[in-house]
Amino acid sequence: MAEAGAPACCKRKRENEANGGSQDGAGAGASPLAGFQLQRVLGDSAREKIIFLHGKVNDESGSERDAVVILEKTPFLAENITDVLHGDPAPQLQMSNDVYSTYSLRPPSQLNEIKTTLIFPATEKHIKKYLRQEVFLIQETGEDYRNITLPFIESQSFSLQWVYNILEKKAELDRIVYENPSPTDGFVLLPDFKWDQKQVDNLYLIAICHIRTVKSLRDLSSEHLPLLTNILNEGQDAIRKRYAISGSHLRVYLHYQPSYYHLHVHFTALGYDAPGTSVERAHLLSDVIQNLQLDSQYYQKRTITYALRADDPLLQKFRDAGKC
Amino acid sequence: MAEAGAPACCKRKRENEANGGSQDGAGAGASPLAGFQLQRVLGDSAREKIIFLHGKVNDESGSERDAVVILEKTPFLAENITDVLHGDPAPQLQMSNDVYSTYSLRPPSQLNEIKTTLIFPATEKHIKKYLRQEVFLIQETGEDYRNITLPFIESQSFSLQWVYNILEKKAELDRIVYENPSPTDGFVLLPDFKWDQKQVDNLYLIAICHIRTVKSLRDLSSEHLPLLTNILNEGQDAIRKRYAISGSHLRVYLHYQPSYYHLHVHFTALGYDAPGTSVERAHLLSDVIQNLQLDSQYYQKRTITYALRADDPLLQKFRDAGKC
Repeated sequence: MAEAGAPACCKRKRENEANGGSQDGAGAGASPLAGFQLQRVLGDSAREKIIFLHGKVNDESGSERDAVVILEKTPFLAENITDVLHGDPAPQLQMSNDVYSTYSLRPPSQLNEIKTTLIFPATEKHIKKYLRQEVFLIQETGEDYRNITLPFIESQSFSLQWVYNILEKKAELDRIVYENPSPTDGFVLLPDFKWDQKQVDNLYLIAICHIRTVKSLRDLSSEHLPLLTNILNEGQDAIRKRYAISGSHLRVYLHYQPSYYHLHVHFTALGYDAPGTSVERAHLLSDVIQNLQLDSQYYQKRTITYALRADDPLLQKFRDAGKC
Repeated sequence: MAEAGAPACCKRKRENEANGGSQDGAGAGASPLAGFQLQRVLGDSAREKIIFLHGKVNDESGSERDAVVILEKTPFLAENITDVLHGDPAPQLQMSNDVYSTYSLRPPSQLNEIKTTLIFPATEKHIKKYLRQEVFLIQETGEDYRNITLPFIESQSFSLQWVYNILEKKAELDRIVYENPSPTDGFVLLPDFKWDQKQVDNLYLIAICHIRTVKSLRDLSSEHLPLLTNILNEGQDAIRKRYAISGSHLRVYLHYQPSYYHLHVHFTALGYDAPGTSVERAHLLSDVIQNLQLDSQYYQKRTITYALRADDPLLQKFRDAGKC
């Protein structure tokens, strides 16, 4: 719960509860999720049991605004399994063949939650992020970065306010797992939005550095080695202390392209096949450190391969430049 | 319902319902699932929301026998989304920051089923199939490779006869998609065993080089750049001609550790989340080429990170050497 950091939202929630959990939703005082009117499915994954939705919600002034809702079924908890299996009603047999049979099970709803994320108001970019699209591989040279990607990033006004809120302790203060307060070599470590924190099997934390001038991998040079080694070593230590997960069970990596241009590092459980860990997006922090030790300008010179979705405006920039 | 195919099982189920849906389970007449006594979790996937369980069930003679139960949450159905979101009780706000907020949702149980599979009686082989091995991250220095990994590889008698059969056209001749016959810089390209070739969505080919002295990434130096660039360029061309898939839709990479020690390169469809593409195992061929251009001895000197399963004998070698 982020009570201190989110007065407006929590206030809306409390008012909604005071109204007896009214579901009519739209308008001032209601939970924006309760007022969500589904427009379309942006994408889904049957493998991951997740669905991305675009809809409308009336804001406090009564104007209709875009919202994105992400629903994701939660992983099983070992301690609840007996209650899930032996609750009421009894499992319904569907098929039986030799030693194999299948059943449909409807456990009590408190044992079968859905993790729900609301983005409201959502921008066009939020909506596009979750809209399923064909993907294309880009080979971005250092020159392409300077001529195409950097001007594109600078022309976008994707807000980093939520990052600054964390760094300035204006939001999510109670979620911080560890901090190194150095303005140059320090960072804040906290659970990623995507992790429900109920089990360490899908552990997912993010280290966000205090320095605000490093947009991505491309801006790193050997001067950032103290920052990067702090994140690797202190991040692993903090996770071992808090969650009893050792460094040999952690995947520690950066994304390129990242989803926001303020340097951050991902920590996921090694046994968890987390989204965004594939070789065309993830860069192990231990490799990044070694590459910078080998050549301070490694990431300025390097051709970096990554995938872009068909609707990504950066892909169009590469096409306009005749680069793909 | 599979009435015709499952008389015994359905009979047991009906008797159970006639007993008022009794959950005491064990013994003749009850659904074997109702009598399932959990022993341990064999494995699970937080990403896929699936869990594999080992337990005991009393059979009809009252003897305790092994059973495996697989629980998997069901994918979302677009037509149920509005009911899922706006059911009772109202979603509980968990966190809020800027435009992002998360909620816990407990939809009515009939909208949130769990697919349940019972294997009963289960053999030892069934149980092993679902038993997850813990994985450990290894940081293998160049010295570790020479002192631990290389002697281990050489002590194993992994047969490469099936590879030589392909290269010598003694097997799979009709599967070859492309060949460059140069003994030093050539290779054979053919579909991977795992690909059924029924659709290009999960396209998976392998390039096997003719040279027999390169075991893995660790043996590569700048002298292999002609071989590697041939594989990248000619492999992409051949796939475009045969399957109409362009290079911008292909992920081209090596594994370290590989599953066999004769150099080979994987080509998979970019949109296919193929196993073995994660950053702790896959190395993009375009990155390998650049690294060798930067430093011919890059892969002899480099600390390489990879994951080993708890039962991998190489992990024991690292432990014996006090390296993990």
